[in-house]
Amino acid sequence: MLRKNEGVKSMAQANGFSWRLITENTEEKLLDFSVNVNPLGIPGTVKKHIAGLADITGGYPDPDCRYLRSCLAEKYQVGMEQILCGNGADDLLYRLVLAVKPKRAIVIEPTFEEYGRALKLAGCEVDHYVLKAENDFLLDDGILSAIQKDYDMMFLCNPNNPTGQVLNPPLLKEIVERCCDNNILLAVDECFMEFLPLWKEYTAKSLVTRTTNLIVIDAFTKTYSLAGFRLGFCASGNTGLLSSMRLYGQNFAVSTPAQLAGICALMDDSYMKNTYHILSEEREWLAAELGKLPLEVYPSQGNFLLLRAVDKNIRQMLFDQGIKVRDCSRFYGLNSEYCRIAIRAHDDNRKLIKALSNIFS
Amino acid sequence: MLRKNEGVKSMAQANGFSWRLITENTEEKLLDFSVNVNPLGIPGTVKKHIAGLADITGGYPDPDCRYLRSCLAEKYQVGMEQILCGNGADDLLYRLVLAVKPKRAIVIEPTFEEYGRALKLAGCEVDHYVLKAENDFLLDDGILSAIQKDYDMMFLCNPNNPTGQVLNPPLLKEIVERCCDNNILLAVDECFMEFLPLWKEYTAKSLVTRTTNLIVIDAFTKTYSLAGFRLGFCASGNTGLLSSMRLYGQNFAVSTPAQLAGICALMDDSYMKNTYHILSEEREWLAAELGKLPLEVYPSQGNFLLLRAVDKNIRQMLFDQGIKVRDCSRFYGLNSEYCRIAIRAHDDNRKLIKALSNIFS
Repeated sequence: MLRKNEGVKSMAQANGFSWRLITENTEEKLLDFSVNVNPLGIPGTVKKHIAGLADITGGYPDPDCRYLRSCLAEKYQVGMEQILCGNGADDLLYRLVLAVKPKRAIVIEPTFEEYGRALKLAGCEVDHYVLKAENDFLLDDGILSAIQKDYDMMFLCNPNNPTGQVLNPPLLKEIVERCCDNNILLAVDECFMEFLPLWKEYTAKSLVTRTTNLIVIDAFTKTYSLAGFRLGFCASGNTGLLSSMRLYGQNFAVSTPAQLAGICALMDDSYMKNTYHILSEEREWLAAELGKLPLEVYPSQGNFLLLRAVDKNIRQMLFDQGIKVRDCSRFYGLNSEYCRIAIRAHDDNRKLIKALSNIFS
Repeated sequence: MLRKNEGVKSMAQANGFSWRLITENTEEKLLDFSVNVNPLGIPGTVKKHIAGLADITGGYPDPDCRYLRSCLAEKYQVGMEQILCGNGADDLLYRLVLAVKPKRAIVIEPTFEEYGRALKLAGCEVDHYVLKAENDFLLDDGILSAIQKDYDMMFLCNPNNPTGQVLNPPLLKEIVERCCDNNILLAVDECFMEFLPLWKEYTAKSLVTRTTNLIVIDAFTKTYSLAGFRLGFCASGNTGLLSSMRLYGQNFAVSTPAQLAGICALMDDSYMKNTYHILSEEREWLAAELGKLPLEVYPSQGNFLLLRAVDKNIRQMLFDQGIKVRDCSRFYGLNSEYCRIAIRAHDDNRKLIKALSNIFS
């Protein structure tokens, strides 16, 4: 995993040091459609309070994240003890799997690769329930009969990454019930949920107080474009599970900057309204423009779109034009014909359409 | 572990929100000698660049921490591939133990409690090699015969927390050699090492290129008072071990603010000089003043001192005077007669001596 000296220091010496060198995408000249965070960038309230970090980062962060948890508990109408915060959603995913030690799990694919990776790390056997391209990757009630006593855990991403489909609420309830009946712990990843204006109707967080077989993982990463801060949280009615997850790793998992950023983001009243506005406009515009090209565009409720170009590796062809998109060849059940694009601001989206038009002209 | 609603929100509502509510010590009125971070607070270079975080935290941090690792590799004269960064030293400690899965380990006590906690979490049997108060908790070559083939791992904190003793370099080398001969992985925690002006003569980091049986864990937490940011690192000649540790948890462990803070701290040329100045003056002054009181004061090379008051719980008596010190009753081999005090700025240290004088007058 560790790459040998990749010349980052010599790069810095040659071109002058830039703080961008400490971010994932050091290729400044690339237009990045591969990272699917909120196109608005970090909330204004976070920007406003960042300088204040100098006064509070000398000591340890609150290991209990009490203030942040109290804000989240109020937002989601759950008890404060039903919330656990972590160093990004992935920190919680690994703690969850290490704490539960499942023997056999079912994952609905294609989806975010970390579920399978974390499960295998914990020595768990993983079965894949594969959604079909011809059904637009929609999960239907066929899943219910696959939920069997043989499983200890089930993973579901809603809306799903990279397909963008959201589960209808009655089916979600049936899945939760079936998991309860079979004593399966259902982990729902809602990292993209709040890109839906009507997320309150779709979220599984409203179900956590009713059962101990459900845990919902979420993060500030995508919704508030706070990827750099590393801040995730989860909600579960199973407070024993949350305590156990807390033990599976260090006590001071969530930094002070992350706690501050999370609280500030929740204070920003206009940010999500602006997000819904830009996303609905740009998603519609992009879908219409993409529809004119010989591409398969799957219906998405997220801040991203899954595309398929038969017999073409458009990822490489876009890269050659300075645009980075997410290669989907490593998603289970997909291949290099598929790529995922984030919905960005209009000027960027126009550039993407132009580059795609060049490919197909 | 999760405490139920502790009224933090109602506290905020009653007294007005303060960012201090997201730090560990919310008791603003207490003078805190319990947390042993650098008394200078965060470096000026970090303060100067904090506001710039607004521009780079929207995307993901560099998961490889390349720039930071290149700075650390240069500082410690090791290869960049021999450095791994983490979300604080504790993140690395848990990854280490989960990746190695030792069956039996030896820990030199009294010491930082997390080694034992992490080892037990991984199902490891833990033996304790207990240092003696009558020898001022000094580790001597008696340890060599305790290093036996039965062990997979050994933990050593140098300088040791909470006793403050540093290991003489020839004995350190013998311990490393004996661990190599017996195929034991030696983990040396050097989180307090750089409070010694002559740390280069004492550090085990200079030995990592020679063996694959040694890993040295360190952090920015104590040295640079960056506890709030969560930034640790480790050095090892065993790059396979580092790769495995990286897999035991999420890929994006180190936040952008932490990477920025670490790089800025390493750029601050005067910070450590000032640190040595204040620590040597204040350690000497405190030791002299404490020596006038009926207390046992153990010799320390760290930024803290271990005290013992026979038949007295001075922790509670200091707390009643608004001063918080570290209770040592949970350290293996110590009890509530012991407490650890951080060395702080002179005015604070005077207040501590005054409060102690009140107790013994």
